[in-house]
Amino acid sequence: MRKEYLYSPGPTTVPPEALSVMGKPIFHHRTKRHREMFQEILDGLKYVLATQNDVLVFASSGTGAMEASVANLLSSGDRVITVSGGKFGQRFGEICRAYGAEVDEIALEWGHPVDPAEIEKRLSEEVKAVYVTLCETSTGVNNDVRAIAGIVAKSRAVLVVDAISGLLCNDLLVDEWNIDVAVGGSQKGLMIPPGVAFCSVSEKAWGLVNSSKMPKYYFDFNSTKKSADKADTPFTPAVTLLRALRETLRMVRSEGRENLLRLYAKLARAVRAGTAAIGLELFSHAPSNAVTAVKVPEGIDAGELLNLLRDELGVTFAGGQAKLKGKIFRICSMGYTNEFDILTAMSALEFALKKLGYQFEIGAGVKAAQEVLS
Amino acid sequence: MRKEYLYSPGPTTVPPEALSVMGKPIFHHRTKRHREMFQEILDGLKYVLATQNDVLVFASSGTGAMEASVANLLSSGDRVITVSGGKFGQRFGEICRAYGAEVDEIALEWGHPVDPAEIEKRLSEEVKAVYVTLCETSTGVNNDVRAIAGIVAKSRAVLVVDAISGLLCNDLLVDEWNIDVAVGGSQKGLMIPPGVAFCSVSEKAWGLVNSSKMPKYYFDFNSTKKSADKADTPFTPAVTLLRALRETLRMVRSEGRENLLRLYAKLARAVRAGTAAIGLELFSHAPSNAVTAVKVPEGIDAGELLNLLRDELGVTFAGGQAKLKGKIFRICSMGYTNEFDILTAMSALEFALKKLGYQFEIGAGVKAAQEVLS
Repeated sequence: MRKEYLYSPGPTTVPPEALSVMGKPIFHHRTKRHREMFQEILDGLKYVLATQNDVLVFASSGTGAMEASVANLLSSGDRVITVSGGKFGQRFGEICRAYGAEVDEIALEWGHPVDPAEIEKRLSEEVKAVYVTLCETSTGVNNDVRAIAGIVAKSRAVLVVDAISGLLCNDLLVDEWNIDVAVGGSQKGLMIPPGVAFCSVSEKAWGLVNSSKMPKYYFDFNSTKKSADKADTPFTPAVTLLRALRETLRMVRSEGRENLLRLYAKLARAVRAGTAAIGLELFSHAPSNAVTAVKVPEGIDAGELLNLLRDELGVTFAGGQAKLKGKIFRICSMGYTNEFDILTAMSALEFALKKLGYQFEIGAGVKAAQEVLS
Repeated sequence: MRKEYLYSPGPTTVPPEALSVMGKPIFHHRTKRHREMFQEILDGLKYVLATQNDVLVFASSGTGAMEASVANLLSSGDRVITVSGGKFGQRFGEICRAYGAEVDEIALEWGHPVDPAEIEKRLSEEVKAVYVTLCETSTGVNNDVRAIAGIVAKSRAVLVVDAISGLLCNDLLVDEWNIDVAVGGSQKGLMIPPGVAFCSVSEKAWGLVNSSKMPKYYFDFNSTKKSADKADTPFTPAVTLLRALRETLRMVRSEGRENLLRLYAKLARAVRAGTAAIGLELFSHAPSNAVTAVKVPEGIDAGELLNLLRDELGVTFAGGQAKLKGKIFRICSMGYTNEFDILTAMSALEFALKKLGYQFEIGAGVKAAQEVLS
């Protein structure tokens, strides 16, 4: 009977409306029925991304679509700018290097956003693409993608944004801001299980695609677009996940993108207020609304805290990744999360910290969160 | 209230036991709970493939794992042998060429299996890998992988087998036969929705992996193995699909691989007998037990036949792909299919053909099938 609460920044809680359709009998994908569903999904993703650009959908997790944005835009030896301010920004650098690109990596102290001026400084005629992260999931940092896009749009380079965890939580207006490739995934703000990823592709980006000499097949933009234009996919799609995605995209449309952005901004503010009220410090210097990274207070063991939360209270937070392991924990406020979920999270955090001997006034975190939420 | 019957060679019918677990609340993948599940899946896949080799699992459809077997084994300019006897054999050639391999393609008349002696003739010191298909889904042909493996094992080349649709239907003993890389998918004999694919990798294949210079990241064998050794994945796995896969792997183990092979052999024999009894001709000269390709009889329009079956009777067969469109239809007998399903398929086929004016004795196909099945 124990209830489980998932606050990890992916996978996020899947709404029952989406869970239940995955349990329905499967159907074949080369059918009108599937094409109608897929067209609705393509339209829904365009709505979410605020774009009229092509949206290409892959059966993979987010990293597959990140790789697609490298393999389809570049040729070996091409110069790119990447930003290493956390595990996922670092990943873009790793992928680019794996594909033989010449990587100019902006190394940041983790927890800090990239300074758009630094990108401007490094941009040159030779730079083919700039790879940045909207929400750096590993640090809870939101980068100023709008400012970066304004800079990159004036250059010959294309801008690729990993919006996997930030999408719908911090604003991202693909067309208005001139984002050439936005990469998204299914298991974050879109609230379905992992296994579907996508890219939007601007005209400027298609220019690079057509001259790219990198090898690719499964993630090929051209074959995927050719099929997408007929509401189809070149390879077997993840039918059940798409079915769930149709449901959550309907929910997103029904709530409205702007309203969701306001909601998640408020939820994240409540998490920040709640944790501050019990003396905890944020890790991020530019906090994302998707996930809040909190420093583990002195004297508390991160593993013990997370295990206690999960095993005794049924509450899953995420720990730190890579060099942040043991130093932070992360509370997600994206997707199928509401005000009461944030109070539950704060309350569980208080219970666990109290049990581990951390000194604070019980209830102070929940109260501060509630003040923001009311 | 209309019942739906799916006889397409992927996705295949998903058993309720697997459907229902996909509707359960999702859980996080970096947990003991997930690792235990994933270890059971890795063990189950080894059982299915009859191997002790590493098995690497990807969140992708089958083509992703086919690409992995190219990107991880080869370097640009490497010489390979591929077999183009249908859409999927052809695909191996396309992927190899996309990656800059030098492809010696054995072009077959579609519907015919590859002659192992032809592979032997073309093998040389320079050939790095031979790519063949167990069941060529597009033509219903089963290739003699055992004989091919015996030949390739004596050479320096590695053998890669696309077993995506053939697995569990026609025998494939990875270790006993010396198959270096076997590629599998989730939505065929393994009975779950599309979105999970896998490769087994022999020691001989690892030798090539370690000298491969092809770019790769998402499908990287080394990082995937490093994680798999800890029952983990380098990137977010398709949690709900894996959950379903655990259920179907348990079913497969409980039935027993040998028993399933016998069952599908019998079911396919029944389809062949049933279609022959009403005067239909097989397309394949070496029929697979996974899927039976039948020539559309003269005077009958394939599209009309398939639509009538699907829209009026709720019965989905697959049509022909690429150059076989309009010329054949395909009935799958893999996965969650039993004797009664075959009788249903035969009966529906008879109803539809009768309605379209094809001349035959009604009931003759069902009777012939039943004789085989009894």
